[in-house]
Amino acid sequence: MKKTLLVYMLLIAAFALYVFRYEQTGPLNGTWEDKGLRGSIGETYMMITFQSGLEYWKSGLKGFEDAGDALGVTVEYRGATRYDAQEQTTVIEQAIARKPAGIAISAIDPHSLIPVINKALDAGIPVVLFDAEAPGSRAYSFLGTDNYKAGVTAADKMAELLGREGQVAVLTLPGQQNHEERSRGFRDTIQRQYPAMKVVEVADGRADAMVSRDESQRLMKAYPKLAGIFVTDATGGAGVGEAVLSQKNSHPLKIISFDTNKATLDMIRGGTISATIAQGTWNMGYWSLQYLFHLHHHLTIPAPSSTGDNTPLPVRVDTGISVVTRANVDDYYAK
Amino acid sequence: MKKTLLVYMLLIAAFALYVFRYEQTGPLNGTWEDKGLRGSIGETYMMITFQSGLEYWKSGLKGFEDAGDALGVTVEYRGATRYDAQEQTTVIEQAIARKPAGIAISAIDPHSLIPVINKALDAGIPVVLFDAEAPGSRAYSFLGTDNYKAGVTAADKMAELLGREGQVAVLTLPGQQNHEERSRGFRDTIQRQYPAMKVVEVADGRADAMVSRDESQRLMKAYPKLAGIFVTDATGGAGVGEAVLSQKNSHPLKIISFDTNKATLDMIRGGTISATIAQGTWNMGYWSLQYLFHLHHHLTIPAPSSTGDNTPLPVRVDTGISVVTRANVDDYYAK
Repeated sequence: MKKTLLVYMLLIAAFALYVFRYEQTGPLNGTWEDKGLRGSIGETYMMITFQSGLEYWKSGLKGFEDAGDALGVTVEYRGATRYDAQEQTTVIEQAIARKPAGIAISAIDPHSLIPVINKALDAGIPVVLFDAEAPGSRAYSFLGTDNYKAGVTAADKMAELLGREGQVAVLTLPGQQNHEERSRGFRDTIQRQYPAMKVVEVADGRADAMVSRDESQRLMKAYPKLAGIFVTDATGGAGVGEAVLSQKNSHPLKIISFDTNKATLDMIRGGTISATIAQGTWNMGYWSLQYLFHLHHHLTIPAPSSTGDNTPLPVRVDTGISVVTRANVDDYYAK
Repeated sequence: MKKTLLVYMLLIAAFALYVFRYEQTGPLNGTWEDKGLRGSIGETYMMITFQSGLEYWKSGLKGFEDAGDALGVTVEYRGATRYDAQEQTTVIEQAIARKPAGIAISAIDPHSLIPVINKALDAGIPVVLFDAEAPGSRAYSFLGTDNYKAGVTAADKMAELLGREGQVAVLTLPGQQNHEERSRGFRDTIQRQYPAMKVVEVADGRADAMVSRDESQRLMKAYPKLAGIFVTDATGGAGVGEAVLSQKNSHPLKIISFDTNKATLDMIRGGTISATIAQGTWNMGYWSLQYLFHLHHHLTIPAPSSTGDNTPLPVRVDTGISVVTRANVDDYYAK
């Protein structure tokens, strides 16, 4: 009977030791939580865009998800199905009602969403903007492309393709800020840096394949020496590509497009489009989640209490661009 | 005896359950390492500046240290003692020899450090730049103040202080890019936004207290109606403050300075300096370390293999500013 008691005691001691070790090193212990950034699975961060069907959002969402995986939190995607500010507002209202740990928003236009963004902040939900901003809102940060710089890069690439001489045109969406900036960066650079080049016209492609195809055909007729077109959106770029492909005598037009949807990449592979500007969309999503996580966990520098006007996070993040050509196009297909 | 056996079996089962739970959730399990960002204590990240004695670096270093604590890695600070490009190059050379996990550098000027920065990258050591950049280098990212925007903010604050009218001057360091941009943002804004205001002179204060004091005395004599001075550096700001304090008949000059060293904050508390522009220095340090950690652990989006020209990290980060006045000055003293 003594032997049994000894075994009992040994077992109980070993048991206690394990419980003790578990408490020391297990997930409930402070040391582990302090060292290392980690949230909880019950913590939900939402990404909200307009036109949820667009292939364009995929890479940003992948970045958002990758950061969610890295930090051990849950992410969800919601999008207005159409290009409709009222619908996106409703989607954000519904998100606020669910009290998420944070929301990353790509704003359909600079103005419409300001009230609902501020409403989320008033409800204590951190908001950052990515891809497309809403400058008057109180969102903590904007992460996106420096579109002027993207236009400069497109101009430099065009000059390289054309041996620094010849007539070029721009096909853009007049009135849309992102596109205006791309166009302006391109035109300024051609004018300042390349005296043997000239931007002969800036036309409206309406981000539509048909309109862009027709407009580019008109431009090629109007300017027989036209050597290149910079198109500030992917759908329009594919339209210009079609125009060139449909010609009997292939016009040696150099096309530089924007973004990296499959149609654009296929045309680069086929040689119809010479280059396209890839945006740092993964970075937009990844660092948006990081920022929201830091706000939710109060890991940013505390705002001075009396004013609240200091900036707990970087206010503006240029997520970078890269130039895609036939040489590296295979790296840009979704994996 | 049957009863004893039952107790044995129950104990063993409970023991096994605990061991099982421990393996499932304990720190040695892969799930824990995968979920959550955490480095190792043997991983050393270095911050390197020029003029290591400057109070200005403290808050950036605090951000760097806070990120190191959060991620469970080691950080070290090194600085050239003087304002000397050759000395800073040597400090970086010494750092490279120690093979750190990453280096964050504030560059003494835009050109001198480019070779040594590229040398670190060639040695496989990630480099980001903060506070002061070196545009021609291959460093992954720059995190710092948008100085033009800081100048705009200073102009808006000056207009508010002066009721949108009156003569103002700028005391700056001609030739230094950061300071030129602050000055330009200020002058452009006064000219465009405030027709009843005028920048009467832009003078050289050499970032020196004595020179700035003398220059501001000269300006007050030359322009008896001078109502405000924007000084683009902290040392100069204190010099202008001294000039105003030393006057017999206190001139009601409004001074807006830059940065938040103790002398500046004291003069704001005392009412001599009306406002100063605080930079997001903590953010520069904190997010520099985050970026280096992500590069070291290959947590960024992979660069297309064939070109390597895409950007694994945001290329440019505006770390934000805030306006410090008597109302919130107490929040800016080092804690």
